[in-house]
Amino acid sequence: MISVSQLVSQVKSGNYLGLARALTLVENDLEGSADLLKEIRTSDTPVIGITGPPGAGKSTLVNAMINHLSSEGKSVAVLAIDPTSPFNLGSLLGDRVRMAEQFNKPNVYIRSLATRGSLGGLSGKTIEMTDVLKSAGFDYILIETVGVGQSEVEIAGLADISVVVLVPESGDEIQSMKSGLMEIADIFVVNKSDRDGADAFANNLKKLVHQRTEIIPVINTIADKSAGIDELMQAIEDQPIKDNTRRVFLLAEKAWKLIQHEKMKNINRMKLQEEIRTASVDPEFNLYRFVDRILSSTKNS
Amino acid sequence: MISVSQLVSQVKSGNYLGLARALTLVENDLEGSADLLKEIRTSDTPVIGITGPPGAGKSTLVNAMINHLSSEGKSVAVLAIDPTSPFNLGSLLGDRVRMAEQFNKPNVYIRSLATRGSLGGLSGKTIEMTDVLKSAGFDYILIETVGVGQSEVEIAGLADISVVVLVPESGDEIQSMKSGLMEIADIFVVNKSDRDGADAFANNLKKLVHQRTEIIPVINTIADKSAGIDELMQAIEDQPIKDNTRRVFLLAEKAWKLIQHEKMKNINRMKLQEEIRTASVDPEFNLYRFVDRILSSTKNS
Repeated sequence: MISVSQLVSQVKSGNYLGLARALTLVENDLEGSADLLKEIRTSDTPVIGITGPPGAGKSTLVNAMINHLSSEGKSVAVLAIDPTSPFNLGSLLGDRVRMAEQFNKPNVYIRSLATRGSLGGLSGKTIEMTDVLKSAGFDYILIETVGVGQSEVEIAGLADISVVVLVPESGDEIQSMKSGLMEIADIFVVNKSDRDGADAFANNLKKLVHQRTEIIPVINTIADKSAGIDELMQAIEDQPIKDNTRRVFLLAEKAWKLIQHEKMKNINRMKLQEEIRTASVDPEFNLYRFVDRILSSTKNS
Repeated sequence: MISVSQLVSQVKSGNYLGLARALTLVENDLEGSADLLKEIRTSDTPVIGITGPPGAGKSTLVNAMINHLSSEGKSVAVLAIDPTSPFNLGSLLGDRVRMAEQFNKPNVYIRSLATRGSLGGLSGKTIEMTDVLKSAGFDYILIETVGVGQSEVEIAGLADISVVVLVPESGDEIQSMKSGLMEIADIFVVNKSDRDGADAFANNLKKLVHQRTEIIPVINTIADKSAGIDELMQAIEDQPIKDNTRRVFLLAEKAWKLIQHEKMKNINRMKLQEEIRTASVDPEFNLYRFVDRILSSTKNS
C-alpha cells in the first residue's frame, strides 16, 4: 500500500499512474483523500474553462487545442465534465477514435468525469480534482463543461480564463444567456464559422461585449479543421493576469463550498426522505420543528 | 409588542396587516421568526408556480388569473419573485396602474420580493414565506418567478403545479431549456398567441411533450386580453393530485436547504474573503488546511 506522501510525490513528478490513483482517491473521497489534499502544493498552472451549450463543438475544440499545445511541446491535462463529451465515450465511434489518439501522447492527460446530479453542473469533487492536477506540473489545464444552469458560474469560479463557445445559430440563445455565460466569458469563440450567418453573429456578439468595460475577444474557429486555433491560443496568452481581488474571491468561494460540504456530510438525503415520509403522516407535522430535531441530533458530529 | 402566538392567530384569521408583519419577520429573519415558523400550521392550499423567460408576459398572466379567481369569489395570494415583475415596480407606469387595482381587492394579497444574489433564483426565504402564506387560508397561492439558471428547478420544489410560460418566439430557447423548464412543467402556456407562428410553435411543443409519459397540457393564451385564462384555470383544476412520493421528496429538499442554511449561519462570506486575503500571501498556503482550521473553530457554535 502506497502512502499518501509517496502518492503526492508521484503526482508532483508527473507519474501518470500516480496521478490517476490520486484523482480516483479524491473523486470518491476514499481514505487518505483529505490528507492528500492537505499535502499537495498547487502551482500557477493556468486553468482554462471551455463552456457553452450542447452541440457547440466544445470537445472538438478541446481536441484541436490539445494538438496545438502538443505540437509546441507543452503538456496539458484535460478534465471533461460534460456528460455529452466524446471524452466521456458518449459519442459516435468516429469521435472516439479521434479522441483516442490523445490518450497516447505522453504530455497529454485526459480524465473524464460524469456529472453527479441530473442538472449538469460540476461534479461534487471538481474543485479538489483540479487542485490535484494543479500540483502535477502541467503547462495547461483545460476543463470542458456543458453550459447548463449554474455550471457556467461554477466553472468561472474554477477557471482562470473562461472560454465560452457558441455557434452561428446561437443568436437567440444569447438573450437568455445574458445573465450567465455573458458575464463569465473572458473569450468568446464562434465555432463552426464556415456556416451561414457566422460573420453577422460574430459582429452582433462584438457589439454586445463592447458594452462591457473590458474588451472581450471574439474568435472565429472551425475546430474540426483546426482553423482559428492559433488565434484562440494567442488570445488566451494575451489574457491579463487576474488581479488578486478576483483570486481571493474565488478561493473564498471554494472554501465556502468545502466548508458546506463538510458540515453537511452527516446529513443523508435518502435518510431525510425516509424520516419525513414517516413523520409527515402526522397532521400536526411541522417542517421547522423537524429540522430543529435533526440539527440537535447532528450538532456535535 | 405583539406576541408570536398572537401573530400566528392573526395570520390564520386572514388579517392582512398581521400577514404582512409575519412575512417581514420571516423574510428578514427577525427575532421571533423561528418560533413563528414552528407554530404555524400549513394548509393544503395549492401553490402554483408561474415561470418562464423574461418577456413572456408572466405578470400579465398572473394579473389575468387573479381577475379570474376574484370573479369566482376565490381568495389568492401572490408572491412575485421576478425582479423584472411589474409587481416589483420595475416596469412601465401602465403596468403599475393595472397592477395597483389588485392591491385593493379584499381577497387578493400581493407581496413582491427582490431576489437576492445576482443570478435570479429564489430569495433565501421563499420557502418560509410560502409556508406563512399557506397558513393564512387562501384558496390559491401564485408564485411568479423568472426562469433563469436553477430557479425553475427551485420553483418546482416549491410549487404543487408548475406553469411554464413561453411565447411563439421561444422556439430556439426550447432546445437549451430542455434540461430545465421542460422537466418541471406540469402545464405549458403559449402566451401572446395572437402573434405569428403561435400555432406552429404550440404544435411543436405538443409533439415534444408527447414524448413524456404524462400528458402535459399546452394552453394558448393572450393574457392582456384575458383570452385562454378559463382554459388555463381548468387545466390547473384538472391536474392530478401529486402522489405522496413527490410530496415527501419536496419536503426533504426543503429540509435539506433549511439545515444547510442553519449549519452555515456562522460562516461569513466577507470574513472568509478577508482571512483568505491575509493567509494566501504565504506561498505555502493550502486551502484544505485553511478550511480545516475554520471547521475546528466553528465546530461547537
